[in-house]
Amino acid sequence: MLQEGQQEDLVALLSDLHPNDAASILSGLEPDEITAITALLPVGLERDIFEYLDSEVQESIIAGAGRERLVRLIQAMSSDERAAFMERLDERIRDQVFPLLNRAVREDLIRREQYEPGQVGAILSTEYCALGADLTVVRAIEEVRRQAPDKETIYVCYVVDGQGRLRGLVSLRDLLVARAHLTVGEVMRTDVAMVEVTADQAVAARMIRDYDLIAIPVVDHDQRLVGILTHDDAADILEAEETEDIQMMAGITVDEEAGSYAAEGVLSHFRRRVPWVVALAVMFLGTAAVIQHYEALVTGTLLAFLPMVMSTGGNVGAQTSTVVIRGLAVGQIDTRAILGVIWKELRISGCMAVVLGIVVFVEVALIGSHDGSTTMAGVALAISAALAVQIVAAALYGATIPISLSAFGMDPALVANPALTTLCDLSGALIYFLTISLLL
Amino acid sequence: MLQEGQQEDLVALLSDLHPNDAASILSGLEPDEITAITALLPVGLERDIFEYLDSEVQESIIAGAGRERLVRLIQAMSSDERAAFMERLDERIRDQVFPLLNRAVREDLIRREQYEPGQVGAILSTEYCALGADLTVVRAIEEVRRQAPDKETIYVCYVVDGQGRLRGLVSLRDLLVARAHLTVGEVMRTDVAMVEVTADQAVAARMIRDYDLIAIPVVDHDQRLVGILTHDDAADILEAEETEDIQMMAGITVDEEAGSYAAEGVLSHFRRRVPWVVALAVMFLGTAAVIQHYEALVTGTLLAFLPMVMSTGGNVGAQTSTVVIRGLAVGQIDTRAILGVIWKELRISGCMAVVLGIVVFVEVALIGSHDGSTTMAGVALAISAALAVQIVAAALYGATIPISLSAFGMDPALVANPALTTLCDLSGALIYFLTISLLL
Repeated sequence: MLQEGQQEDLVALLSDLHPNDAASILSGLEPDEITAITALLPVGLERDIFEYLDSEVQESIIAGAGRERLVRLIQAMSSDERAAFMERLDERIRDQVFPLLNRAVREDLIRREQYEPGQVGAILSTEYCALGADLTVVRAIEEVRRQAPDKETIYVCYVVDGQGRLRGLVSLRDLLVARAHLTVGEVMRTDVAMVEVTADQAVAARMIRDYDLIAIPVVDHDQRLVGILTHDDAADILEAEETEDIQMMAGITVDEEAGSYAAEGVLSHFRRRVPWVVALAVMFLGTAAVIQHYEALVTGTLLAFLPMVMSTGGNVGAQTSTVVIRGLAVGQIDTRAILGVIWKELRISGCMAVVLGIVVFVEVALIGSHDGSTTMAGVALAISAALAVQIVAAALYGATIPISLSAFGMDPALVANPALTTLCDLSGALIYFLTISLLL
Repeated sequence: MLQEGQQEDLVALLSDLHPNDAASILSGLEPDEITAITALLPVGLERDIFEYLDSEVQESIIAGAGRERLVRLIQAMSSDERAAFMERLDERIRDQVFPLLNRAVREDLIRREQYEPGQVGAILSTEYCALGADLTVVRAIEEVRRQAPDKETIYVCYVVDGQGRLRGLVSLRDLLVARAHLTVGEVMRTDVAMVEVTADQAVAARMIRDYDLIAIPVVDHDQRLVGILTHDDAADILEAEETEDIQMMAGITVDEEAGSYAAEGVLSHFRRRVPWVVALAVMFLGTAAVIQHYEALVTGTLLAFLPMVMSTGGNVGAQTSTVVIRGLAVGQIDTRAILGVIWKELRISGCMAVVLGIVVFVEVALIGSHDGSTTMAGVALAISAALAVQIVAAALYGATIPISLSAFGMDPALVANPALTTLCDLSGALIYFLTISLLL
């Protein structure tokens, strides 16, 4: 359509679509085509679509747009989107654009800079609907109607006093069903879930999920309302948080500015992945030294099954830590319940130890060999005993390490599963050699 | 308060709290105390709190409540909560209660039984707000106000024709800002994101997240509106989905009825964890056979570093598959981009291979020993070459297996990371022996 000059049809088409779909279509085009099309769009529509574009496409649009257009786009954004956008902007462009923005926008951006990247204050929206407690329900609905076009949500309204302190909230539904002569103060709810502006974004997002909220109000230390966080932003925060947890568990360092898989460069991927792998390879020196020391002990079948005992322990340990880390993350496990969790994992891994002891006994009987000083049954028994001990030990590490980290206020996912596996490798080698020395 | 007979104060206290907080308090009490308290509550409040209780606490309440009370509780629930509740109910109790429910409730439950557990139809809410296209905006707002008390959400209203087909939607915000004389048909949006009733719940939930919706309409194959799925249910679905993905990746079988960590019994935990561990222990027979076959080749330092080469490959493979599986799950990676992903992972793992090759060379030089037929540098070089090849191979498995599963319509998380680790162990052993045979 662009090539055929049907510019009006193109704009009409894009404005009929959901901005996310329009963004998907644009993403499939060449950078210069995208720039040409976005230049045609009204600034409100460009803003709506822009929000859904990948950061690489956003960058190419920014590179192609004039400074004036960029300023209009930034000013049209909602306050939270704008803050996130400015954060990602190249420093040179940011310095050029900032003085051109209008004063209210500049002040909003400066106020946000007080907060750390992970705090609610850095991403809250200031476009909330505020009402006075002494308005009647009829007047309040009129007021909501007046504020509707500019607000992030109008379905929850916040009641503040003269000092701007949060006194309660009233949903639009409450207003619509309330009798007309009542005041907002009479129909509002006063038991309001709220977060402080310095709180962790993930904590705020989790409250929205746990309490099934449309938005959560954000207050300063004097309980003055400073903004809101909405359910759709909460969903994005939790998704990013879960991606971080999953990657941490696989031994990948978290970088909040890494971007999507495709947008992140090879070197950045490499930098986030190599540290744990190198650290574990170095820790493996211990295991290698143990094996070298006991070398004479392991020959033939005993050698062949050593890696299996090590790895199976790693598998069980990773299962346990995964379940425990996830349980902690979604609030199903309390750090105070550590003894209960350990006792449960002991019983679970006890069952697994019995089953796998039998499995490996049969395996050794199948492919094993033995020399004059041992019997086949003796070799099989020693290996299966070592595996059983290793499995229970691995489950213990998997349960205690994440809960301990969490009890000390750290992220339980910090104990990457590869680290646990490496610990299981070392402990597996030791258990193996000790058991064999004892039994054979 | 219960012991002191302050029953009214207790009810007043619980009704002032958010139901989630009231549920937390109740959960800390003994089963008979919980039963005594819930019997005091008005049925609407009991329903609100009930929704937030763990399934074990719910069960003890059900066990303690009379049949009549249970029927009133079930009838007071929203249609989606009720369906989920009946699903979890003990079959014997369900059969007793079902005939006592009123007809509309029974019909709703029967209609849902057509759908599989993971389909949208099984959990949709039928309490949506429907409007005719020819209503004026003023009349429509009146209608919304009338329907408000009974609906799951009134903030999005659905416009249906005489046959019940979905024609568009209008948000309450749109209605409030529209001029009063317009009709709903004139202000509604017609480009509506919707899902079919047989669609996967996770797909519907992801659409709500991607399009930042408050709810998504659910239609049958004739595009007749049959219900909605709301954003808070979507958040719960996605959280459950992510827990499943994380557990699958750790080699834990998914059981949708397993419940929370604490609620699930030791035997159920054991049943979900043991299959992969046993399967992998059996697959390890291959690795054990390979090691046994090449036994004569590996002595001293060469033996000590074999597990390290196997494990480091496993770590790299697990990192790659984690990133790829997550990228597929959140839509950052497209299965058609398989070649691009493989090329990227080849470059990333190439960098890692160089770094780790150097690390292991130094390690061998530090603690290694050699016999007359080899030199220290030769041993170190052979081991570091084997490790480098192993790392690149592991990244290839980690990238191709999940994308291939996804391309065939399967869940990429099905390739549990322990399975990948075991594959890396086998391939690591083979690469190690081949490299050593070639170089030494």
